[in-house]
Amino acid sequence: MSRTLDYTKELIRRASVTPEDEGCQDWMIEKLEALGFQCETLWFEEVRNLWARRGTQGPVFAFAGHTDVVPTGDVSAWKYDPFTPTEEGDLLYGRGTADMKGSIAAIMVAIEDFVAAHPDHNGSLALLITADEEGPSVNGTVKVVEHLQARNEHIDYCLVGEPSSTNTVGDVIKNGRRGSLGARLTVKGIQGHVAYPHLARNPVHDATPALAELAGTEWDQGNDFFPATSFQISNINAGTGATNVIPGTCEVIFNFRFSTELTDALLRERTEAVLDKHGLDYDLQWTLSGQPFLTDRGALVDAAVTAIRDVTGLDTELSTAGGTSDGRFIAPTGSQVVELGPTNATIHKVDEHTSISELDTLTGIYTRLLEKLMQ
Amino acid sequence: MSRTLDYTKELIRRASVTPEDEGCQDWMIEKLEALGFQCETLWFEEVRNLWARRGTQGPVFAFAGHTDVVPTGDVSAWKYDPFTPTEEGDLLYGRGTADMKGSIAAIMVAIEDFVAAHPDHNGSLALLITADEEGPSVNGTVKVVEHLQARNEHIDYCLVGEPSSTNTVGDVIKNGRRGSLGARLTVKGIQGHVAYPHLARNPVHDATPALAELAGTEWDQGNDFFPATSFQISNINAGTGATNVIPGTCEVIFNFRFSTELTDALLRERTEAVLDKHGLDYDLQWTLSGQPFLTDRGALVDAAVTAIRDVTGLDTELSTAGGTSDGRFIAPTGSQVVELGPTNATIHKVDEHTSISELDTLTGIYTRLLEKLMQ
Repeated sequence: MSRTLDYTKELIRRASVTPEDEGCQDWMIEKLEALGFQCETLWFEEVRNLWARRGTQGPVFAFAGHTDVVPTGDVSAWKYDPFTPTEEGDLLYGRGTADMKGSIAAIMVAIEDFVAAHPDHNGSLALLITADEEGPSVNGTVKVVEHLQARNEHIDYCLVGEPSSTNTVGDVIKNGRRGSLGARLTVKGIQGHVAYPHLARNPVHDATPALAELAGTEWDQGNDFFPATSFQISNINAGTGATNVIPGTCEVIFNFRFSTELTDALLRERTEAVLDKHGLDYDLQWTLSGQPFLTDRGALVDAAVTAIRDVTGLDTELSTAGGTSDGRFIAPTGSQVVELGPTNATIHKVDEHTSISELDTLTGIYTRLLEKLMQ
Repeated sequence: MSRTLDYTKELIRRASVTPEDEGCQDWMIEKLEALGFQCETLWFEEVRNLWARRGTQGPVFAFAGHTDVVPTGDVSAWKYDPFTPTEEGDLLYGRGTADMKGSIAAIMVAIEDFVAAHPDHNGSLALLITADEEGPSVNGTVKVVEHLQARNEHIDYCLVGEPSSTNTVGDVIKNGRRGSLGARLTVKGIQGHVAYPHLARNPVHDATPALAELAGTEWDQGNDFFPATSFQISNINAGTGATNVIPGTCEVIFNFRFSTELTDALLRERTEAVLDKHGLDYDLQWTLSGQPFLTDRGALVDAAVTAIRDVTGLDTELSTAGGTSDGRFIAPTGSQVVELGPTNATIHKVDEHTSISELDTLTGIYTRLLEKLMQ
């Protein structure tokens, strides 16, 4: 039986719904200490995190991942109990199989094999594990990174085990992510009766030309690694249901996913210029969820691309699409960051599953990557 | 003591919250029959209506009004019990004093005086009274008008007793009303994640340019009697509160108040042309609340203007502003329609009241108007 399969099952049995760890990190620590890792458990508020390192020299290679999983939803909708790992042919069912206990199992096996073959490897091997990636992400990776920075401990190469693959393992890796900037806009008017519009000021009428301009703006054209920056209105609300009342305010929530061609400061400035140009009376609250980051061609990307080609024959696609990941907290420290993990078709869904043979392939890719970078 | 004051008090004591009549019409019938009126009580569903007529010849002058009043709201917020008419100096407090039991009292006194002085008056005198003006207005005036039309009974001059005055009784009369056309628009998109806008279609982005164009359109310039047609969005709603989801639909409720320069058919056509031009995928449900109507200078308007000048010295203002009234149901039959009643500052409010001396002035105006038209 595949060790990666065995390890994945061990982790699935621990029902670590975010922000719980349920012994996953203890299980890892036991194995890592046997390999000569120094393991530090770092509690931030109610969140357990792990920083494990083998070696004292640079460069530092770190695998970043999380032991927490998203909730199951209605368990009766699942084919099998989500915390009883169940094989069906080449498939393994269970919450976290793809996101991302399978990746953790794969890196554990890869490290065991690599350390056994190269006990005096180059630099240091490390793991940065949190139990708060699927939750608010406030007391997880970001706090560990701050902790490491405070003592001048630097990660050179960071492999994030998030499920980056689309159709088959290794077909896509993420070498960056777009930034995410949210806003809550309140356009203020004067309430009144629709029969007396001259006594009122309709905030929807004020807002729509400005929103139309924002929705129609080309913010940038993207670049080789990023699609064009995207503006999306997720919510708009005005009025109480009464058909004869001009509403007093119009509430709008919107979000930018932005490329490295822009900064959040520029987006704020350009947005406010549009609102001001249209003469709106407004309040605007911004929330920056993450800066964009990009790891260009270099040692880590090249090692990942080569490892994938060596093991699978695939020419992997470099992508920056999709949502945010904990890579956003690590990249700003100057680390090279790549996300490489299983296929993501069933993550966060009922009947989450992964392919057992792909978990073994992923283990092979991780091992090869370590050989390329750290031998 | 003023008979108009006495009659108003009689009516206020009858707590006829819409659609109840509470004996108001019986009280009227007793007095009208004594004057030689033929009285017909017309029930439509749960609503009591009255058609009373004195004479068989044309022209027919009809006073149109309602015995129902709007609810009181929290009675403890009132200075005096709303159904115990209470004098305070020249003021009379009570629900319905201004809207419109004061007008009914005034026309009753005016008719008594006029018939006493001119028992063989010209044409016919009539009253069209409903107890469903403040409610849905479905089983009130509109049904009585249909009933009269079915037997070819026509109203030539219609005086609606609604509180038309702004600062002092007679300063404003309404010789028409704008039309009201409502719509419920559903713009259809495709729901998705804000990080993957290419897989979604944002209905708010589709809608805003079209709404901006509708809000910015000059529909007409009005005319001598009507302000320009007004478009107002009363409600817009899209999104569930989640900040990372592109909504699947955007719901918009809007309303036109339109002049006699336009028809509802033209407004529908022009609106749909804008929505189509912007390529929206939409559903649209229209509700016509009332066609605009206008009574131009002629026998009725001239009689009202002269009566007001004779009694008060005021040059009255002809207006078509404000909401709708039951005049919308009578005007389409070809009747001349004018609204003339007390000041409207406290209607539908807590502590509704009217000026006792103005009720007497109104009685004088109504009497003079009857003399001008029907002597």
